[in-house]
Amino acid sequence: MKVGFIGLGIMGKPMSKNLIKAGHELVVCDFNKGAVDEIVSLGATSAENGAAVAKVCDVIITMLPNSPHVRSVALGENGIMEAAKSGTVVIDMSSIDPVESKAIGDKLATIGVDMLDAPVSGGEPKAIDGTLSVMVGGKKETFDRFYDLLMTMAGSAVYVGELGSGNITKLANQIIVALNISAVSEALTFASKAGASPELVYQAIRGGLAGSTVLDAKAPMMLDRNFNPGFKIELHIKDLTNALNASHAVGAAVPLTAQVMEMMQVLKSDGFEKEDHCSLLKYYEKLTNVEIKRA
Amino acid sequence: MKVGFIGLGIMGKPMSKNLIKAGHELVVCDFNKGAVDEIVSLGATSAENGAAVAKVCDVIITMLPNSPHVRSVALGENGIMEAAKSGTVVIDMSSIDPVESKAIGDKLATIGVDMLDAPVSGGEPKAIDGTLSVMVGGKKETFDRFYDLLMTMAGSAVYVGELGSGNITKLANQIIVALNISAVSEALTFASKAGASPELVYQAIRGGLAGSTVLDAKAPMMLDRNFNPGFKIELHIKDLTNALNASHAVGAAVPLTAQVMEMMQVLKSDGFEKEDHCSLLKYYEKLTNVEIKRA
Amino acid sequence: MKVGFIGLGIMGKPMSKNLIKAGHELVVCDFNKGAVDEIVSLGATSAENGAAVAKVCDVIITMLPNSPHVRSVALGENGIMEAAKSGTVVIDMSSIDPVESKAIGDKLATIGVDMLDAPVSGGEPKAIDGTLSVMVGGKKETFDRFYDLLMTMAGSAVYVGELGSGNITKLANQIIVALNISAVSEALTFASKAGASPELVYQAIRGGLAGSTVLDAKAPMMLDRNFNPGFKIELHIKDLTNALNASHAVGAAVPLTAQVMEMMQVLKSDGFEKEDHCSLLKYYEKLTNVEIKRA
Amino acid sequence: MKVGFIGLGIMGKPMSKNLIKAGHELVVCDFNKGAVDEIVSLGATSAENGAAVAKVCDVIITMLPNSPHVRSVALGENGIMEAAKSGTVVIDMSSIDPVESKAIGDKLATIGVDMLDAPVSGGEPKAIDGTLSVMVGGKKETFDRFYDLLMTMAGSAVYVGELGSGNITKLANQIIVALNISAVSEALTFASKAGASPELVYQAIRGGLAGSTVLDAKAPMMLDRNFNPGFKIELHIKDLTNALNASHAVGAAVPLTAQVMEMMQVLKSDGFEKEDHCSLLKYYEKLTNVEIKRA
Repeated sequence: MKVGFIGLGIMGKPMSKNLIKAGHELVVCDFNKGAVDEIVSLGATSAENGAAVAKVCDVIITMLPNSPHVRSVALGENGIMEAAKSGTVVIDMSSIDPVESKAIGDKLATIGVDMLDAPVSGGEPKAIDGTLSVMVGGKKETFDRFYDLLMTMAGSAVYVGELGSGNITKLANQIIVALNISAVSEALTFASKAGASPELVYQAIRGGLAGSTVLDAKAPMMLDRNFNPGFKIELHIKDLTNALNASHAVGAAVPLTAQVMEMMQVLKSDGFEKEDHCSLLKYYEKLTNVEIKRA
Repeated sequence: MKVGFIGLGIMGKPMSKNLIKAGHELVVCDFNKGAVDEIVSLGATSAENGAAVAKVCDVIITMLPNSPHVRSVALGENGIMEAAKSGTVVIDMSSIDPVESKAIGDKLATIGVDMLDAPVSGGEPKAIDGTLSVMVGGKKETFDRFYDLLMTMAGSAVYVGELGSGNITKLANQIIVALNISAVSEALTFASKAGASPELVYQAIRGGLAGSTVLDAKAPMMLDRNFNPGFKIELHIKDLTNALNASHAVGAAVPLTAQVMEMMQVLKSDGFEKEDHCSLLKYYEKLTNVEIKRA
Repeated sequence: MKVGFIGLGIMGKPMSKNLIKAGHELVVCDFNKGAVDEIVSLGATSAENGAAVAKVCDVIITMLPNSPHVRSVALGENGIMEAAKSGTVVIDMSSIDPVESKAIGDKLATIGVDMLDAPVSGGEPKAIDGTLSVMVGGKKETFDRFYDLLMTMAGSAVYVGELGSGNITKLANQIIVALNISAVSEALTFASKAGASPELVYQAIRGGLAGSTVLDAKAPMMLDRNFNPGFKIELHIKDLTNALNASHAVGAAVPLTAQVMEMMQVLKSDGFEKEDHCSLLKYYEKLTNVEIKRA
Repeated sequence: MKVGFIGLGIMGKPMSKNLIKAGHELVVCDFNKGAVDEIVSLGATSAENGAAVAKVCDVIITMLPNSPHVRSVALGENGIMEAAKSGTVVIDMSSIDPVESKAIGDKLATIGVDMLDAPVSGGEPKAIDGTLSVMVGGKKETFDRFYDLLMTMAGSAVYVGELGSGNITKLANQIIVALNISAVSEALTFASKAGASPELVYQAIRGGLAGSTVLDAKAPMMLDRNFNPGFKIELHIKDLTNALNASHAVGAAVPLTAQVMEMMQVLKSDGFEKEDHCSLLKYYEKLTNVEIKRA
């Protein structure tokens, strides 16, 4: 079975390599000629566009920046839909607006193409290691059929419900992460402004109910003033934009997410959009006129 | 050395029992005659008020509901200050406004009485087990001197800085807990309104960066619609009131804490103030017109 | 000079009638055949699409629901750009995202077509009376040239700066209106919950610094429980969506607007999206469990 | 009838002068000897404390900074309650927490002393002119009896309901004023960041639904960068503190007020607490990295 792979960016390139390593015959596509050549040199073939991929593959993975790119590659000019046979499966592993996932999937369904939305978390290191976490929405039997394929790139692949649920889950994840980072930032700047040592506060509370993966991952970075990404503010803005769009599409209220989005706009305006999302701390430092550091 | 213990409530009673069990000679005081009798029957003696306790004890532990009670017992009529000798140490284990901790400690210092602020986390079960977490502010040498005493009631006692820092740390903890619960509530109601299963979402994200002690402690309670406390909304309101007062006293901005405080007011108005703080979920359910439950 | 007019909806129809009344030769276009026939019966001619309008008109007014419609009519298939001569002027009187205004105008400029963005306020009654307020962005000389044309539909036409400024001004207006309505709602539900009469409160404060056009327009409606639009929640959601998009595009933070947007999502979820925007009161009534009414 | 007047500050001094001018026999009291001497030189007599005033007056006006001062003068040592005869009336014209108004009034009622809460708006200039706006809570017949007395200091005196309602009304007023100033600040910084002229925006929208007393009073000050008080941030913080306390006492949610309170904390931290409340603009300028000024 030939596997199409469209989108050879920071994430897509190592993911495609893991597919090749696992013995899959790959047909890759990207506007970046260098990336295509690199994967072709490992044994893949290339195709010019979505339609060309669809002509020769029964399953096509897409790994693209955001909803409009997926829509264009799937439904646009020279897109998958122009050439895909009935029975083809599209697995979109991009992180996009779930409303768009459903809309694109519905269109593809009209020609008998089935779609899974399967966004990942874990970032470049886990893409390289093949230990990404994948959250998958769509038909359960389609998920079951491609579980092994997904696991060549992942440490876990969890089925979470109908089409769109993969991205809903991803966005729920990103909401919690953004808010938990803000919570740590708000608490540590308060403590510091009030005269306590943020480092001792962190040590004192990390074992209790305030403990979290975010606290242990980000508080030490904050104390070291290490804002190297990790996960960039600008990517978290993209995700929260999708989260706000998706929540507004269904009439859900996400008041704290909306607040953190505004905080991130301030960070963007201050030039920190390429820093790790733990630079949310800098929003609070700006408000409060303190700087967090080790004692 | 006689140890004074003022405040035999839900927390104070089991804490005083652990002190007796460890062999300390206790002088207890509470307006609740029944509680006093119970502890006296275990070998303690009793005293009428703070001054009477101070007459016979060199170290006095207070475990009271909030700042005004501590102020009254320490500085008010028939309070500790009226009778304490120079060299006496007051260990306030109540959770109060750190601004008040400092103010009360400053007053006591004028007659040579030293104070630690040493609030706890862990609730009644850990008070009974003697495994509370204690966060201690004040002079380091005073902390060192009474470390063993504290450890008869605690699983850990961490020094966090000058007087007031214990309560600042406790409030930083409570800020993070409140916000992390809100984050989970916001994410799960969004996911549910958007059509995904909150249970599958929870399972899918708990191992990643969104993971937290709150997520694992509270999401299952939410899914089971179990809102039995645990830690009551009304107590969290008390703590956030202290957090807002303390932050405003120093000019720190805590915008998300202020928002969650307003959510808790809604819960109070809806009659949920005696429920566990994870009933923050109900605020979001009310906004969003969904009910979270297992699939 | 033939005037093109694209978009004969609730606003566009009466505006086009006022142009005809003033003696202008009109070429109208709308997908709604009935609306076109009505205006043609008054002396206008009709054209099939933007391109057809552009072939015969040197100035083209557009009055459409939102940014995508304007983009499509201006730049899409059979759009204005396909047929417009250099020197043509497009006056977009729709309320759209100012970022889109600039982008569309930039495209049109490449073929020598000049654009004004000229959104209106005042609603259907003032569209009928020809007393709309128009806020105009673009080249000052183009504004001056078409001032008289605009005034056939308007009570005032104010120049506010370069292209996009008309819509920025409109959005600034809508931000203030939304927040002022929320302010009145928050204050009156607070007063009512605290035991005061909202009607007496309103009377007592309307003459002071709290006075506003919103207070005098909306408080009586609230007290009468009259939520008939006026200006619908769903239209205000559209405007705040554009305001949030535009502010995020430039890195401006609009934290209170973001909060009111979430309140409006709750109203949508509760089925009030067709009511007047003063039904923001109902959000607060839901939170607070009170109902505002006359004493 | 002798009139007691306790509190000769910025507001109380000119108010007491207007009472003397109107022919009332005044007994004044303040810890500030200079202020007392000034009013005594105009014909008043003085008394040492609240009790001494109560001994010789049947009506006592208080004009004090905040709730604790009123409580102390009314109920504390050497306070009014120690000496007041049944039938005495206390008119508290301070701006305080309405929950405290009710509590203090209830205490006084136990000895037959009746209380009105009658806070004012208008500031020092209107105190001098005798044109303050007074909002009065308490018994209607008491209000009627002292209406003429109040009007010697006021341009209007409006009855708004039972005891506490005067201050509830004042706080509702202050909530709206704070939010309307924030609304103007948010809209003008957005417009400016997006490239429009804040001055033209102001001119374009002031006549429509966005118009308000705040807009016309504060936008020109903002454009002139004139932040001279007027009404100081620190006083607005005091009022919002009372508003939040009062709303939390009754379980009302005031989410936007809570947000603006946090903004004001930032201004305090930045050293602007003595500036006019329109310096809320500076919060937004800090967030957004723009400065509002005339074109």
